[in-house]
Amino acid sequence: MIDIEQANQETVTRMMAARPILKTIATARDVIPGMRDDLLLHAGPPISWENASGPLRGALVGALIFEGKAADWEAAEALLTSGAVTFEPCHAHSTVGPMAGVTSASMKVYVVENVTHGNVAYSNLNEGYGKVLRYGAYSAEVIEKLRWMNGTFADILTAALAQTDGIDIRALLAESLHMGDEGHNRNKAGSILYTAKLAPLIAQTDFSDDEKAKTLQFLGDNALSVLNPVMAGCKAMCDAGAGIAGSTIMTTMARNGTEVGIRVSGLGDQWFTGPVGQPDGLYFPGYTAADANGDIGDSTITETAGIGAFAMAAAPAIVTFISGTPELAINTTMNMYEITETEHTAFTIPALGFRGTPTGVDIRKVVELGILPQINTGIAHKEPGVGQVGAGLVLPPANMFEDALIAYAEKYL
Amino acid sequence: MIDIEQANQETVTRMMAARPILKTIATARDVIPGMRDDLLLHAGPPISWENASGPLRGALVGALIFEGKAADWEAAEALLTSGAVTFEPCHAHSTVGPMAGVTSASMKVYVVENVTHGNVAYSNLNEGYGKVLRYGAYSAEVIEKLRWMNGTFADILTAALAQTDGIDIRALLAESLHMGDEGHNRNKAGSILYTAKLAPLIAQTDFSDDEKAKTLQFLGDNALSVLNPVMAGCKAMCDAGAGIAGSTIMTTMARNGTEVGIRVSGLGDQWFTGPVGQPDGLYFPGYTAADANGDIGDSTITETAGIGAFAMAAAPAIVTFISGTPELAINTTMNMYEITETEHTAFTIPALGFRGTPTGVDIRKVVELGILPQINTGIAHKEPGVGQVGAGLVLPPANMFEDALIAYAEKYL
Repeated sequence: MIDIEQANQETVTRMMAARPILKTIATARDVIPGMRDDLLLHAGPPISWENASGPLRGALVGALIFEGKAADWEAAEALLTSGAVTFEPCHAHSTVGPMAGVTSASMKVYVVENVTHGNVAYSNLNEGYGKVLRYGAYSAEVIEKLRWMNGTFADILTAALAQTDGIDIRALLAESLHMGDEGHNRNKAGSILYTAKLAPLIAQTDFSDDEKAKTLQFLGDNALSVLNPVMAGCKAMCDAGAGIAGSTIMTTMARNGTEVGIRVSGLGDQWFTGPVGQPDGLYFPGYTAADANGDIGDSTITETAGIGAFAMAAAPAIVTFISGTPELAINTTMNMYEITETEHTAFTIPALGFRGTPTGVDIRKVVELGILPQINTGIAHKEPGVGQVGAGLVLPPANMFEDALIAYAEKYL
Repeated sequence: MIDIEQANQETVTRMMAARPILKTIATARDVIPGMRDDLLLHAGPPISWENASGPLRGALVGALIFEGKAADWEAAEALLTSGAVTFEPCHAHSTVGPMAGVTSASMKVYVVENVTHGNVAYSNLNEGYGKVLRYGAYSAEVIEKLRWMNGTFADILTAALAQTDGIDIRALLAESLHMGDEGHNRNKAGSILYTAKLAPLIAQTDFSDDEKAKTLQFLGDNALSVLNPVMAGCKAMCDAGAGIAGSTIMTTMARNGTEVGIRVSGLGDQWFTGPVGQPDGLYFPGYTAADANGDIGDSTITETAGIGAFAMAAAPAIVTFISGTPELAINTTMNMYEITETEHTAFTIPALGFRGTPTGVDIRKVVELGILPQINTGIAHKEPGVGQVGAGLVLPPANMFEDALIAYAEKYL
């Protein structure tokens, strides 16, 4: 007889005991398990070119241009539809990526090791704002910025990190949650903590003053600088809780712009999917809901790990970005306690009397109570090449939790 | 007939319209009005050597050792008691200093200009933690650190600031209040924002990589790095509201370790004083309330300007440092609305629905309602040379508000 409660406790205990340390930056093909030159990784559950949304297609094309495998959209599309280049979920390769999440073999990635259990997770580098690959932009300026990031920028960060034993991402997140971040859409504090930690290390590297200054400026101006190492940290924590027999805790939630998929600790690598929702939020000037792509990105690994929208009560100022009121922020966190297994031992919310964040979504509670995990998200334009058009709140579809519960019953009961 | 309401509105409007910009760093004797080589500035209202508390005495002695005017306590005390060296309040010289606040002619100071009204305010450099002059320590290591700060550290910051039009302190504070700071005892976010802003500028200066790294490390590790420019910024804002005929708004509140003093906009430079309280708070391991000096420092310029304890609702995490609960933080801010003239237009509190911070203490309301301005503060050891022993909450004495109101009635009614 399966003791579900014990299995769930083991899952969340492992997730919370995981201590993700940002160790270094490396080239994807050298470190990501199963990475190949003719493989692209993308956010969310598996998908075909036919079903891929605009921004995901744009990012896949951009990555092939970046790799020098295609000169334009047509050439890239031919490679992607012929099977000459295949694409698989980041999550199938211990990796996560924000928005389209496309990662190719030559790209530099953050290497984050969970030193408690030994598993490693990866994430690409954050490109900042404006026209960026992760929102499906693939113009010459996008590729040029990626080349700088993949070259000097990554080299400087690598040399900086080499002077340390790594950066403790869990500790950084715990601190930033006390500074008004929720770790998903608001990473202002985390990103400047990250910049301030790196600054003296960068000063000591053997690069020109101009290159160091440009790197520090880019890190400090980008309030999402730390999002990608945070996501890899959350992935390392969630993976530590994956594969516990009998556990009904969700250990993956990710969107590819067309479908959302979840995976459950006791159900191995099987995806349960459903159609993505349309985020409800605030649009940048000149854009409306009609421009919005469906929900996209692996960044929901933050909610899966117990932060993001789940920690929104720590981040009342986020409502100026994603809409709503500070009361909504509190209520969102309070609701998430209803569907989670525990309260995080490392991540606490000052405004709630330092209560731990709601951690470990139990799919049984989601189905029983009809309360879906809340997601904070950026909103991509539905056409490739445009970029971010807003930010808001969205819910995943209920069916995938029901499907997962049926699969669980078939396997265990 | 004096229109008190109009005078008070003018006071707070000027305080909030003031835009303090950190322009540069300079030597005190070159910039502070009335500064002389045989003058020391100190926190709080005027005081004699006889009545000065341990940490203030220690800091006065340390400053004379730093200046090379005395080799030891006895020599310094002889200068200070003979009148060969005099000491006056920082506030009498457009200056503010945390804790003992002692500033001597050779010390480097932040120069903060209110570009709206043209007045300038000054503050010394923050020494960080441990044995520091501002808590009355004056040993060789304290003086050596001051020399480094006054030399290379100040030179690097000056060269960094010279590349800019200055740093907008009001904007930095507005941002940090959305990141869990209250701007007095919690300046974690402000200090790393400050560090991150300076980092690319520091990278471009002509100093060695080691010196730049040491400077960046010192700035980033010190969660009070930005306190002194913030205090000078608050001083520049409060001074903009000083001297309005008929106004009952408090524009100075400061403590010298023995007495607290206030000044009121409509009552010129006259101090109204009373005995300092003993802060109620959390003590560092090994210390108790019996070790505590009375309340000390000009840092209450933050509360005077509408932040600090007045903005505590923005900083629920501060209670781990100064004692209390997050509810206390909210209640403190709510109470301060009762005795203030307005809500700040630049400083808002996300958790209170972005309500402006309570700004401009009206001494009439303090006396009428019996609600005293709340102060968050560090706690100094009562003996010179020991340093900080804790942090907590304290109230100023009621009599000085009553005395000020009597003086107001004599002058105006």
